[in-house]
Amino acid sequence: MLAWQQRIKNGTIVTGKETYQADIYVEDGRIAAITTEELPGDVEEDIDAAGKYVFSGFMDTHIHSRDPGPTHKEDFTHSTRAAAAGGLTTVFEMPNTTPPVNDAEHFDSQHEHLGSQANVDFGLWGICLGHLNEEHIPDLHDKGVIGFKFFWGYAVHAETFQLMYNYKPGMENVIPPFHDGEVYKMMENVAKTGQVFAVHAENNDLIQTLTSRVEERGGSTYEDLLEGRPALAEVLTVQTGIEMAKATGVRFHVLHVSAGESVRLIRKAQQEGLPVTVETCPHFLFLSAEDFDRVGPKMKVYPPVKHKIDQDEIWRGIADGTISHVCSDHAPHTQDEKDGSLWSIPAGMCGIETLAPLMLNAVSEGRLSLQRAAQLLSENPARLFGIAPQKGTMQPGSDADFTIVDMDKEGTIDQNKLHSKSKVTAYHGFDIKGWPVQTIVRGRTVMKDGDMVSEGHGTLIQPSSTGQTVYGTS
Amino acid sequence: MLAWQQRIKNGTIVTGKETYQADIYVEDGRIAAITTEELPGDVEEDIDAAGKYVFSGFMDTHIHSRDPGPTHKEDFTHSTRAAAAGGLTTVFEMPNTTPPVNDAEHFDSQHEHLGSQANVDFGLWGICLGHLNEEHIPDLHDKGVIGFKFFWGYAVHAETFQLMYNYKPGMENVIPPFHDGEVYKMMENVAKTGQVFAVHAENNDLIQTLTSRVEERGGSTYEDLLEGRPALAEVLTVQTGIEMAKATGVRFHVLHVSAGESVRLIRKAQQEGLPVTVETCPHFLFLSAEDFDRVGPKMKVYPPVKHKIDQDEIWRGIADGTISHVCSDHAPHTQDEKDGSLWSIPAGMCGIETLAPLMLNAVSEGRLSLQRAAQLLSENPARLFGIAPQKGTMQPGSDADFTIVDMDKEGTIDQNKLHSKSKVTAYHGFDIKGWPVQTIVRGRTVMKDGDMVSEGHGTLIQPSSTGQTVYGTS
Amino acid sequence: MLAWQQRIKNGTIVTGKETYQADIYVEDGRIAAITTEELPGDVEEDIDAAGKYVFSGFMDTHIHSRDPGPTHKEDFTHSTRAAAAGGLTTVFEMPNTTPPVNDAEHFDSQHEHLGSQANVDFGLWGICLGHLNEEHIPDLHDKGVIGFKFFWGYAVHAETFQLMYNYKPGMENVIPPFHDGEVYKMMENVAKTGQVFAVHAENNDLIQTLTSRVEERGGSTYEDLLEGRPALAEVLTVQTGIEMAKATGVRFHVLHVSAGESVRLIRKAQQEGLPVTVETCPHFLFLSAEDFDRVGPKMKVYPPVKHKIDQDEIWRGIADGTISHVCSDHAPHTQDEKDGSLWSIPAGMCGIETLAPLMLNAVSEGRLSLQRAAQLLSENPARLFGIAPQKGTMQPGSDADFTIVDMDKEGTIDQNKLHSKSKVTAYHGFDIKGWPVQTIVRGRTVMKDGDMVSEGHGTLIQPSSTGQTVYGTS
Amino acid sequence: MLAWQQRIKNGTIVTGKETYQADIYVEDGRIAAITTEELPGDVEEDIDAAGKYVFSGFMDTHIHSRDPGPTHKEDFTHSTRAAAAGGLTTVFEMPNTTPPVNDAEHFDSQHEHLGSQANVDFGLWGICLGHLNEEHIPDLHDKGVIGFKFFWGYAVHAETFQLMYNYKPGMENVIPPFHDGEVYKMMENVAKTGQVFAVHAENNDLIQTLTSRVEERGGSTYEDLLEGRPALAEVLTVQTGIEMAKATGVRFHVLHVSAGESVRLIRKAQQEGLPVTVETCPHFLFLSAEDFDRVGPKMKVYPPVKHKIDQDEIWRGIADGTISHVCSDHAPHTQDEKDGSLWSIPAGMCGIETLAPLMLNAVSEGRLSLQRAAQLLSENPARLFGIAPQKGTMQPGSDADFTIVDMDKEGTIDQNKLHSKSKVTAYHGFDIKGWPVQTIVRGRTVMKDGDMVSEGHGTLIQPSSTGQTVYGTS
Ligand SMILES: [Zn+2]
Ligand SMILES: [Zn+2]
Ligand SMILES: [Zn+2]
Ligand SMILES: [Zn+2]
Ligand SMILES: [Zn+2]
Ligand SMILES: [Zn+2]
Ligand SMILES: [Zn+2]
Ligand SMILES: [Zn+2]
Repeated sequence: MLAWQQRIKNGTIVTGKETYQADIYVEDGRIAAITTEELPGDVEEDIDAAGKYVFSGFMDTHIHSRDPGPTHKEDFTHSTRAAAAGGLTTVFEMPNTTPPVNDAEHFDSQHEHLGSQANVDFGLWGICLGHLNEEHIPDLHDKGVIGFKFFWGYAVHAETFQLMYNYKPGMENVIPPFHDGEVYKMMENVAKTGQVFAVHAENNDLIQTLTSRVEERGGSTYEDLLEGRPALAEVLTVQTGIEMAKATGVRFHVLHVSAGESVRLIRKAQQEGLPVTVETCPHFLFLSAEDFDRVGPKMKVYPPVKHKIDQDEIWRGIADGTISHVCSDHAPHTQDEKDGSLWSIPAGMCGIETLAPLMLNAVSEGRLSLQRAAQLLSENPARLFGIAPQKGTMQPGSDADFTIVDMDKEGTIDQNKLHSKSKVTAYHGFDIKGWPVQTIVRGRTVMKDGDMVSEGHGTLIQPSSTGQTVYGTS
Repeated sequence: MLAWQQRIKNGTIVTGKETYQADIYVEDGRIAAITTEELPGDVEEDIDAAGKYVFSGFMDTHIHSRDPGPTHKEDFTHSTRAAAAGGLTTVFEMPNTTPPVNDAEHFDSQHEHLGSQANVDFGLWGICLGHLNEEHIPDLHDKGVIGFKFFWGYAVHAETFQLMYNYKPGMENVIPPFHDGEVYKMMENVAKTGQVFAVHAENNDLIQTLTSRVEERGGSTYEDLLEGRPALAEVLTVQTGIEMAKATGVRFHVLHVSAGESVRLIRKAQQEGLPVTVETCPHFLFLSAEDFDRVGPKMKVYPPVKHKIDQDEIWRGIADGTISHVCSDHAPHTQDEKDGSLWSIPAGMCGIETLAPLMLNAVSEGRLSLQRAAQLLSENPARLFGIAPQKGTMQPGSDADFTIVDMDKEGTIDQNKLHSKSKVTAYHGFDIKGWPVQTIVRGRTVMKDGDMVSEGHGTLIQPSSTGQTVYGTS
Repeated sequence: MLAWQQRIKNGTIVTGKETYQADIYVEDGRIAAITTEELPGDVEEDIDAAGKYVFSGFMDTHIHSRDPGPTHKEDFTHSTRAAAAGGLTTVFEMPNTTPPVNDAEHFDSQHEHLGSQANVDFGLWGICLGHLNEEHIPDLHDKGVIGFKFFWGYAVHAETFQLMYNYKPGMENVIPPFHDGEVYKMMENVAKTGQVFAVHAENNDLIQTLTSRVEERGGSTYEDLLEGRPALAEVLTVQTGIEMAKATGVRFHVLHVSAGESVRLIRKAQQEGLPVTVETCPHFLFLSAEDFDRVGPKMKVYPPVKHKIDQDEIWRGIADGTISHVCSDHAPHTQDEKDGSLWSIPAGMCGIETLAPLMLNAVSEGRLSLQRAAQLLSENPARLFGIAPQKGTMQPGSDADFTIVDMDKEGTIDQNKLHSKSKVTAYHGFDIKGWPVQTIVRGRTVMKDGDMVSEGHGTLIQPSSTGQTVYGTS
Repeated sequence: MLAWQQRIKNGTIVTGKETYQADIYVEDGRIAAITTEELPGDVEEDIDAAGKYVFSGFMDTHIHSRDPGPTHKEDFTHSTRAAAAGGLTTVFEMPNTTPPVNDAEHFDSQHEHLGSQANVDFGLWGICLGHLNEEHIPDLHDKGVIGFKFFWGYAVHAETFQLMYNYKPGMENVIPPFHDGEVYKMMENVAKTGQVFAVHAENNDLIQTLTSRVEERGGSTYEDLLEGRPALAEVLTVQTGIEMAKATGVRFHVLHVSAGESVRLIRKAQQEGLPVTVETCPHFLFLSAEDFDRVGPKMKVYPPVKHKIDQDEIWRGIADGTISHVCSDHAPHTQDEKDGSLWSIPAGMCGIETLAPLMLNAVSEGRLSLQRAAQLLSENPARLFGIAPQKGTMQPGSDADFTIVDMDKEGTIDQNKLHSKSKVTAYHGFDIKGWPVQTIVRGRTVMKDGDMVSEGHGTLIQPSSTGQTVYGTS
């Protein structure tokens, strides 16, 4: 006799290609059947999704939960609670923790540490630290990192391997920023794994020079910030990375793209057939420098949000498929830390819980289709990082991860109700139409109508393949 | 109590994105469930697809069954028998029949005429005859044509509306080839329907001039043929069409592309975001002028097969997604008609039954993936012409059209065994690895192991939408 | 003892590269010395050019003097008087006269006919009439035509060889417009001469169709005119010509470019190294559709003046060197003929006498440099058509053709003072700073301060080479 | 009564546009007349150039005379003797001397030091040393440097300002290589002068990394050298420079281009209208890696000579005008220094005396025209660096600098006969057709038939303008 862990009835399934009516039956945490028939058998959890859309679970490939590290800002318990609340079923944690995920041992300890807190499934990024961990790259690959992250332009503490955000030449016990030759070697090493080499792309030397100058003249406005950290800083690194990727064969992934010219360069590289991909974040889609007067210093992030003209090109990248997916770059700071002048406060904002609502609202506004939302939040990242078809795929055998969405539901983002430890967001007060109303991870509902209903269910995801270069929209 | 029309067990399902194990249950001619569980209920037809691949049914969007017309060459009974034998579940019949599909009345008569013979499902192209039928374009759209075909450069008989293949200025009762202004108006009219305006793209004036010259000097080789009918002839029409499409907004589809430069122009148009698509045929992928000495006059088609360098670019178009789908341009002639010199025999070859085997063999040779085959033969044409998700889609609710493929099966194409009336093919003797072994149309097996097991099951397919511009490979 | 025909003292010489102080000594109609020293010897005509600029004589490569033909509108005596008055030392007469310059005999008769009237030097275009004169192309080349003109899209009277501006299919004794195959053959034939194949580029079929439609709905505004004769008409012909030039190797020259997109296509062809060149006219630089309300029907020309956005791109072509030279397309009609509605009056305007003043005024406005003016009006056309270094070249041995310019002189264009028979110009009332004040042809002053001082001095110019493809600005 | 310093009779004058017969009369070191007449007056030096070509004097914009510095290798007396012997009338000395030309004082001392030895005219490059001399950039501009040179990627000794060719991090008293932010500021500063910012473009970090690796594995072949110093090193710097030039508005000049991909990037930048120019050297035109077996370590230069495929693209840049001029990068070492293994010997070769013969030989071989030679060796550099029309210009008032060339003269390059102190050249044994036979500087013959006839005649040249961006060939 059949018995089902879960059934989702009457919903409208959304994939990257189609929207259709069918019911989903779940067993053992996986999709067991997709059907237009009513199947016999007991159902443990029967969900009526009438009037709602059922997506393969959304994911966020780029979060900083500060854990272990400055957990007064955030920790993995909170960030994955926020993830679930925001309709996400999988997150990828960035590796710049304390210690960083720089070798097999730290991969294991982080696996254990986060695994005990995870409210949704998670993947781990590995970090590239040049000669400091080049021999560990194959181990990290074998352990199952989701990809390799390189913080281009940052110095590293020689003992703790922590990134030095305020490096000055001559500091003791500090490895200066890796130079281009060292980056090239990292690319060669990562190329051997077949996984992506993902970079924070900002030319730090240029930024130091221009920002010092702005500071010397007492600049303090948002335009001053951009003068010190211009689009050029991103563009220089992106084009250097593309040429090196061409030479080394590595899959080059540009994180959180912010400048229109970067999108154009990447589009051109894709048209030449190079394995270059790029993601963006909601702040580059829904904020621009022109909004600063209204939004204020809360919108300070690195790379900084640029101008409307850049935003327009990034939207073109969403429309034509240059951009593979959208993620949050969730990087919370406390209210105290974010209080202060634009110049003094740290960069980074809460984003995990608002990622999906903002993108769904864009669907409501006609800026993208339901199909494209499924691609950007679910299918594409799963394929890019090699976790499809386990994740991001609406077919029998795949994990029963679902985000159920009510496109008619309206509401306002209220930062006081966020589930992160720190709650500062530039989107406080944004009106949203289209909300995730249920988050299901491997057949278990973890969020319903905004409330957590199950904790600690998350587990580590390891890629089953090296993934594939994803672009285009069809 | 559940009861199933059909079950396909143990097979490996192939879609444009994934390959996975699941069983398919069919009821009322449609996919009722895709599942990893064994479902209870009686099964009328139980198919064991162990070790085989199950594709959403392959289709051929471009065939000439000569019916009504010169049915001594072919008729729809035979062509759709050949379709089924070759693993196809849907075909689109070209409109240059006698009478042509130029208005609602002829649409209906053709619907009835072909419907009574159809062994697989079929769609009907409508024809564009300039002022001769411009007022019927909306009717043809309403009736449900799959798209509009224009034979650029051909004259039309004023009474019978037949294409005049040997037009000379001054002929009586003949409408001379429509000039560019008239083409522009046709595009405007088709643009209003939202459907594709598909063209045979060869500049007839250039061909007349160059061919006459070759004939005058007694040219008779294949290179002579190409001198008279060069890549330039196609390129001129393609670029004119692209510019007109930009101006009129029509969705412009280039039929049977043969020249590398055409592919490049279309790729560039797509990169500019224009709604321009293109198909190719097996003869442009598997034959080239360099093969003529071996293959002989049987490979004569229009536009003619060009050089290896063109073939290479067409393969690039397959690889990067410029080309949306592959079809046969099935255009049979009798053995008698095809006997003779290169210059005297008619252009066109049998192709419907060899389309899928040739493409599957290319998968075996590593030239494309199973996923890409699913895109080119099933998903993309269904989406392009607006018959998805009814066709070309592996999901509950879609028609239960399947092509079951045995990628281990080896064999040789034997023209004597083809199911068309005329059996001349340039592929006689080609060794193939990867054959369709079962063709299922709406839950009924019509071909098994090469034999027809059900006749007359086909029915007309009408688009549910105008379709979408399809390119890219992801 | 030295004796000089002429000396030009104290002037500032302007070439395409430099501006410098030196005196010019002339003997036997040619430049004998350029020097900073005062040379001994008698001087027949001593000219003080202090404060003035001395250019190698300006030329106009594109005029229609209607002679022989409708000489009530204009004749060569008048047009070359206007040329001299406007600072021009050489003109090229278009071949669509009565009879046309279609063979050696008519070349000779036209040589004699115009030679007897010429007030400045002149070259003759040959006409391409397809099979009607293909065997005469080599003869015309040998006789010394400047290049070959093809009126793309026009019918020709079978006996008189006159262009039929109002061709309708079925007319008796009329050769229908040459189709693409015939054009291809013309290009092949002209390619053998090494000279340029220059075209009036407007797709006539498209224009007929669109204009008829506009007329049927009673359209009568300037925007209606452009709807009937859009940029697309030019673009289609330009791109067809470029592809055919690539195939035949002919030097393809686009006459009187009017659409921005045409300039972009030609720029791209040049960047690919194709022998494609393009000219424009003052009306495309100084008028736009937006001026129609102010200027009125007088600005009607074919191809029609298009929009500001086209004008901007044409100026870019001037700036970056895509455009080789500027000419007038002088095509006068009488005041009577030009009186009437936009729709009824003929296209074409007086332009020969205002060409140089308008371009010099643009120098005054900072839109181009003196060097660039020398290139556009003198050096480039001389090199393009193979009459350098005889013409368009400031060096000893070259013809002593000079245009002396006073860049400080201000005045207003007054159509009543023009020297053409017909005087209608769209520039009546334009304020000009920078006027030609003296025109010297082979050492003889033919115009001084606006007055003719010598008549009948002109003679035929025959190319000494086939010329070279000219683009770029350095 | 007229009196002339010099007359050049019966020669064929070659400019960038034309070739023509005329005589040149010189007075006070300048061209006084160009004429087809025989002028009266005494002539001090009467030169019969019958059968020979007279060019405006060739120049070499890029030489290292090691003076002051390692004058055992070369000094300015010898290098300018070699210049004269090789047909050059002007040279530009690079600023990396001891001391370098980094401020007004050193400009003056170098002016004096070189002025006393100069056998031909000379210009001085200024050096950019980041913050070490940023305040001196305006002074150097005012003093009359020809442009600014930046040795991208090199460290500088903090006291002597000498370039450190073997920099290792941690060296005392050494300024590490200027990073991208510092380069950006240098560009901003030079942009204010309007002069060119010229760079040795090789990414030093990449080279260090790759070369170390090659050395560790004992690599010693020429291919090993290129693996350690690949095209990518140049490409990365070129593209970074182009983007920075776009942002700062500086005129960016790429010195001694060696990689085909660099040429393509620069061509694209020029097509976008950016002020980017590029030079190359004979070794990139006449040698390639494929020649190493024959030529041996003598051909070692930095950037290294690359492959045939790069050479081909560099020739395309010569043909289409992407490359503005050709210079020698004369950088001699003694025979002793150049004896040894590829890996141990210094990079750099003698080139000043063979520059013109090699280019003239290329004219003889039909690889470029006489006009293009005049552009590349005379007109273009004069215009690019703002010393036209004093130099590089064949017109009255310009300096009477001439290179008289015998295109029929054949001979073989013999390194033992070179006039440099060091005589090692990769071209020893090259057969040459086309030799400079007389070098005239400001009306004085300094070389005739290979022999020096006047010493110490050279003087400093200061730009009269900031020059202009030069590309294209017309
Ligand atoms: Zn980052
Ligand atoms: Zn981040
Ligand atoms: Zn066809
Ligand atoms: Zn067909
Ligand atoms: Zn015209
Ligand atoms: Zn004209
Ligand atoms: Zn260098
Ligand atoms: Zn150097």
